[in-house]
Amino acid sequence: MTPRGFTFSATNAGVKSPAVTGLDMGLIFCDTDAVVSGVFTTNLVKAAPVLVGMDLVARGTVRAIVANAGNANACTGKEGIDDAMAVTGEVAARLGVGRDQVIPLSTGVIGVRLPAARMIDKIPRLTQGLSDDVQVFARSIMTTDTFPKVACRQAGNAKVLGIAKGAGMIAPNMATTLAVVLTDAKVSKQLLDNIIIKAISHTFNAITIDGDTSTNDTLLALASGYVEEPVAAVEQAITEVIQELALMIVKDGEGATKLVQITVNGAADNAGAKTVAMSIANSLLVKTALFGCDPNWGRIIAAIGYSGVTVNPDKIEITIGGYPVVVSGIEAPGFEENTLYEILKKPEISIDILLGSGSGEFRAYTTDLSYKYVEINSAYRT
Amino acid sequence: MTPRGFTFSATNAGVKSPAVTGLDMGLIFCDTDAVVSGVFTTNLVKAAPVLVGMDLVARGTVRAIVANAGNANACTGKEGIDDAMAVTGEVAARLGVGRDQVIPLSTGVIGVRLPAARMIDKIPRLTQGLSDDVQVFARSIMTTDTFPKVACRQAGNAKVLGIAKGAGMIAPNMATTLAVVLTDAKVSKQLLDNIIIKAISHTFNAITIDGDTSTNDTLLALASGYVEEPVAAVEQAITEVIQELALMIVKDGEGATKLVQITVNGAADNAGAKTVAMSIANSLLVKTALFGCDPNWGRIIAAIGYSGVTVNPDKIEITIGGYPVVVSGIEAPGFEENTLYEILKKPEISIDILLGSGSGEFRAYTTDLSYKYVEINSAYRT
Repeated sequence: MTPRGFTFSATNAGVKSPAVTGLDMGLIFCDTDAVVSGVFTTNLVKAAPVLVGMDLVARGTVRAIVANAGNANACTGKEGIDDAMAVTGEVAARLGVGRDQVIPLSTGVIGVRLPAARMIDKIPRLTQGLSDDVQVFARSIMTTDTFPKVACRQAGNAKVLGIAKGAGMIAPNMATTLAVVLTDAKVSKQLLDNIIIKAISHTFNAITIDGDTSTNDTLLALASGYVEEPVAAVEQAITEVIQELALMIVKDGEGATKLVQITVNGAADNAGAKTVAMSIANSLLVKTALFGCDPNWGRIIAAIGYSGVTVNPDKIEITIGGYPVVVSGIEAPGFEENTLYEILKKPEISIDILLGSGSGEFRAYTTDLSYKYVEINSAYRT
Repeated sequence: MTPRGFTFSATNAGVKSPAVTGLDMGLIFCDTDAVVSGVFTTNLVKAAPVLVGMDLVARGTVRAIVANAGNANACTGKEGIDDAMAVTGEVAARLGVGRDQVIPLSTGVIGVRLPAARMIDKIPRLTQGLSDDVQVFARSIMTTDTFPKVACRQAGNAKVLGIAKGAGMIAPNMATTLAVVLTDAKVSKQLLDNIIIKAISHTFNAITIDGDTSTNDTLLALASGYVEEPVAAVEQAITEVIQELALMIVKDGEGATKLVQITVNGAADNAGAKTVAMSIANSLLVKTALFGCDPNWGRIIAAIGYSGVTVNPDKIEITIGGYPVVVSGIEAPGFEENTLYEILKKPEISIDILLGSGSGEFRAYTTDLSYKYVEINSAYRT
């Protein structure tokens, strides 16, 4: 399933501390110049690897990605940039590629200097250990994730492989979290840019776990160019991989017990539909009700009403799991609490909203909010 | 402490169900035409009592307020309006005042018809039981509140008394939750309007518990006009009462273990300062870190960065409990995690942000996010 040209490795580099074991540093190598596109966090506080990566992606081709978990290298100032460049520079030297052809990716705690020396020590192990085992790389970027996230598709003879990490600080603003999409299809940079910008609008930018947009969000797409296939097929495969990764991130949301799909139709425009969908998706009261299977649909209609989008309350319709809950802004005729309760007990829930204002539509994905979320995120220095 | 002219009563009316005991219906009576001002939820989905109340407040004077907990009378359509009017009409008849001089207030579950018949049955008990005991009224509007919220001040010989309820669906958009402010000072409607609009901007509109703006938020101010005092003294007393009620609501936020004050200075304007303060105040990652006393300041700076306000990350300063945490966008020199941990263990925490962009300032109040919040809000039909 590995696209031609790409190899992987991972190691423990003691990024959190020398005492913590487990993979926390990974490498992706491309044996030829890979066309590269990237989308980055919209957070104005951007981590050092984001600042470095934005610059490198603009140049058009790269040869490698070096990633770590456990340290975001964010809010680390000039030293943070120097640390990132020291690591990518050493990777470049070991691989015999240009210093500006290695992109850094980091995820983890904000505000702590990257342990660059410990990481540089492990680079020979990474460059010598390259293989087609993508799973080790996927595991090396996990933080609170409970499973590695890998997705793949074929587009004729071309392959598309995606790797991502979750599972907190997930909110819809540009390529949330870290993700890498690799293909051996031959595509131009402009085309690759267009494909991923289009794909993320209804995938990575449609998911939310906690409404917090990270300082490190990055999605990179690399194309080694070995295989010529029709553009439409390649675009579809890349889009499907990105979609699958986005859903994996939601499914593995911190403490999540449910995957919730919220579809809004009939808004004045698509932007309005997205605002309404995200208002529901980020409502603590909706998310805790979903966790408790509480058939309290009033919280959903309240979140529609305060979203900031102009709606006519008397036209709102809400259907949950195919069951009509609200019609014309009030409880649907024959509605029974117990029926909705049974629907809410399922692990995957669809909430469909009709606003009756126009033809704007958007689908968002979110999770419930559980005790476990509080546990994970109140722990000292997660 | 009761302003001249006002009396109170409360009863159980079985609003949730006939089987649930405890005060859930209350009455405030004024023995003269009281000048009235009100601010109401900005949620487009407005409960029936909000729609009725907005209309009545516009007329300028009222004689009574009839309130209930356990049922919001929201998303109940034309019947909801009829139910509210049936209750206020009966109160008016029993008190011998005009039908348009009684304002309804409701709080509780959305989407369920008000049990108007049961409530009407109890109105004689309310009208006959009037006394100066404000506590019974304060208790009758409690939902998940753990204590009744009453505040009072003197302005010369005039008295100001405020009553409010929390403790969830609290977010900063116009007079969050239910609150009533009573005074015997003589003030015009225009002046009373100005005083409360000014007061709520930095009190009720500066607090957030869960970011959810209710369908029922209402703050009413009634002035019986028996006492003439200087405007400035009356304004100060009313403002202080509103401020005290707002802080009580935050302190009693669902599951809250900490009261957190977030002060932003140096934004380009006050609106920008408020957006940044609220972005921090509503961040799940900040709120769970506060619950766990996790000195993870990166979550605060991330929330500043994604707030949507243009800031220069390199100028951000963060001080917590007087202790410098971030200077020039990076960790303050000499910062020690343990020192911040000790500060975060306190029940009241102040977070001060300097942005270095201009002179805009805002102070917001919030709580931490605990297991208890999830417990309260995931329970079946809270």
